[in-house]
Amino acid sequence: MGRVGIVGIGHGRFGRRSDASVQELAFDAFRDAMADAGLAREVLDASVIGAVPEYHKQRSLAGVIQEYLGLNLKPTWLTEAACASGSAAIRTAWMAIQSGLHQVVAVVGCQKMTELSTPEILALMGRVGEVQWESIFGTTFPGYYAMLARAHMHEYGTTKEQLASVAVKNHFYGAMNKHAMFQKEITIQKALSSAPVASPFQVFDCCANADGAACVIMAAEDRAKQISDKVVWLDGLGSATTTMSVIRRPTLTSLPSAVEASRQAYKMAGVGPDDIKVADVHDCFTIAEILAYEDLGFCEKGQGGKFIEEKQSYIGGKHPVNVDGGLKAKGHPIGTTGVSMTVEIVKQLRGEADKRQVPEADVGLTHNVGGNGQYCFVHVFKRE
Amino acid sequence: MGRVGIVGIGHGRFGRRSDASVQELAFDAFRDAMADAGLAREVLDASVIGAVPEYHKQRSLAGVIQEYLGLNLKPTWLTEAACASGSAAIRTAWMAIQSGLHQVVAVVGCQKMTELSTPEILALMGRVGEVQWESIFGTTFPGYYAMLARAHMHEYGTTKEQLASVAVKNHFYGAMNKHAMFQKEITIQKALSSAPVASPFQVFDCCANADGAACVIMAAEDRAKQISDKVVWLDGLGSATTTMSVIRRPTLTSLPSAVEASRQAYKMAGVGPDDIKVADVHDCFTIAEILAYEDLGFCEKGQGGKFIEEKQSYIGGKHPVNVDGGLKAKGHPIGTTGVSMTVEIVKQLRGEADKRQVPEADVGLTHNVGGNGQYCFVHVFKRE
Repeated sequence: MGRVGIVGIGHGRFGRRSDASVQELAFDAFRDAMADAGLAREVLDASVIGAVPEYHKQRSLAGVIQEYLGLNLKPTWLTEAACASGSAAIRTAWMAIQSGLHQVVAVVGCQKMTELSTPEILALMGRVGEVQWESIFGTTFPGYYAMLARAHMHEYGTTKEQLASVAVKNHFYGAMNKHAMFQKEITIQKALSSAPVASPFQVFDCCANADGAACVIMAAEDRAKQISDKVVWLDGLGSATTTMSVIRRPTLTSLPSAVEASRQAYKMAGVGPDDIKVADVHDCFTIAEILAYEDLGFCEKGQGGKFIEEKQSYIGGKHPVNVDGGLKAKGHPIGTTGVSMTVEIVKQLRGEADKRQVPEADVGLTHNVGGNGQYCFVHVFKRE
Repeated sequence: MGRVGIVGIGHGRFGRRSDASVQELAFDAFRDAMADAGLAREVLDASVIGAVPEYHKQRSLAGVIQEYLGLNLKPTWLTEAACASGSAAIRTAWMAIQSGLHQVVAVVGCQKMTELSTPEILALMGRVGEVQWESIFGTTFPGYYAMLARAHMHEYGTTKEQLASVAVKNHFYGAMNKHAMFQKEITIQKALSSAPVASPFQVFDCCANADGAACVIMAAEDRAKQISDKVVWLDGLGSATTTMSVIRRPTLTSLPSAVEASRQAYKMAGVGPDDIKVADVHDCFTIAEILAYEDLGFCEKGQGGKFIEEKQSYIGGKHPVNVDGGLKAKGHPIGTTGVSMTVEIVKQLRGEADKRQVPEADVGLTHNVGGNGQYCFVHVFKRE
């Protein structure tokens, strides 16, 4: 069986995009990815759309996007796994190619969240937690992750300063990313004095709802080599779930879905945590990045707070993480995020990340969590 | 490359299911499919959920269903292609298996529509048409298909009696299907005197919103043969799209997506229309079944009205179609329908359809349309 490679990438600006419809956002990223690959759309066999449908007035997004991209009669459909929908789309495209059904597939992650009001978004988000027994009692999305943060603080002595340090790092790198929603550095004092959200979280512990799209073009090994001389290979895939009900979780200081998904992806790619030179992880809240350090094996269990305090996740540290700004500063258009992470890792592995370039990045990883942790998709990429 | 087989099927009752939550509906179908396959859940590698998310209070359904089925830590995600979501899930599972990533996968189609009021459902459905330029002017779902019906009547002389004959046939068979929402025969007079909906449609030209779930267990060839001695093979897959905007369609008397998807599926399975002994097609409105006869090559273009008038789609006719009652009488829980069609064809190919059994059914087909025709998935199944 051959490999599957990424041969083109495109990424739009994240933020409040009242200037464009969701299909226009998708088109911008798609056009750039096709230009990057040097392909005409006739070469594509199919597209897969990563998005969470219910944020848009337009339902069944895949159909309207396929038309807007000029891809009829080719097949398309949408994948959804909450905030990991983009990675589910990439996994689906990988399978489509490895199954022999398709040779070249476009994956478009797109989301326009700001058509809805903030209370509407909060209500929808809460219902990505378990509705029958949990969210009915008022759990919110920040509330879910705040529980994880409190448990980690209690168990391992993680501090609010360490949480805030994640935000400081991600804003530091976001300031160098022209696609980021927030391109401003912040200080730890600013983070610690921001408005409270759900204890221990303050505003700067939370990522922002955003609009935006990203696109990758994936191809079977032979075709990929014909198309591009800088192919990045998707060699390891992991996907796992844990209970949606937080009350039924075996632990609150780890996401079992992330531990299992990374185990699968490392094994399939024949690498270990120490081989990962650059990673994009799912920092929807600051605690989530600290959990990711530990769940991915970048540091020992309970040492995530110290890991950021010691700047081990900065460029020059042991494992540079989210040097594109992460969800925190780049913004989090939920269905897009997994594809956006992939675009960043491909850029890094190609050596095209400019001021944010991680030296000698030859193996990279994406870690994309859905919901309150019930889904996790981990992908390992290699250059060569 | 080996084949992919269906080794287990499960199907719940369709209708207004205020007795069960969507995860309970899913569980019933899943339990029956696993019992049919004689499998314990540990054997499964993953599940794929076919559903349209926005009908449920619970969002990100795949997560809550995976937990309810007891399948954590295994991966899951949801596929959406409007009313063809179930077939997109089956295509995804086929790819997962053929790619070598998984060996045994459960596909669950599930939908609970009646949590919403009829006006809410109508509003959601309209937005599965193109929102920016079409549905904003008031197009409804029956309205879209009524346009296709009017065009077919104009072009080919198709009559309201022929449309009604489709409903009569499907209610005739629905009366023999214990899972059907409507288990009552109707007369052509009853259909023709029912309340108007969107000219030329009356109530009996339209399928009903419903709740319900269905499940199939799919496995790689070697595993399938170990698991079951009555495997049905999914040997042909086709998927295509046409524009969501009806205004940009090249024709209103055919669905180009269906013509192309069936071409692909026939070619891949090495069969032609004449080989198809039994088919389940997407009769969301009576005209849709007539278009399907023509698009699938069961009769000449324009002859679909005559085809049903001559009872060629009854058991004993040239191509028995929807002998489970179809969407019309069985009900149409939108995300479930593609999986439900698959369950029926597997039953027919196994010879287990009792009074509705098509004699010597060795090759069968499903034709599942999404939206107002923008998606079509065609699958060809073989016994042996």
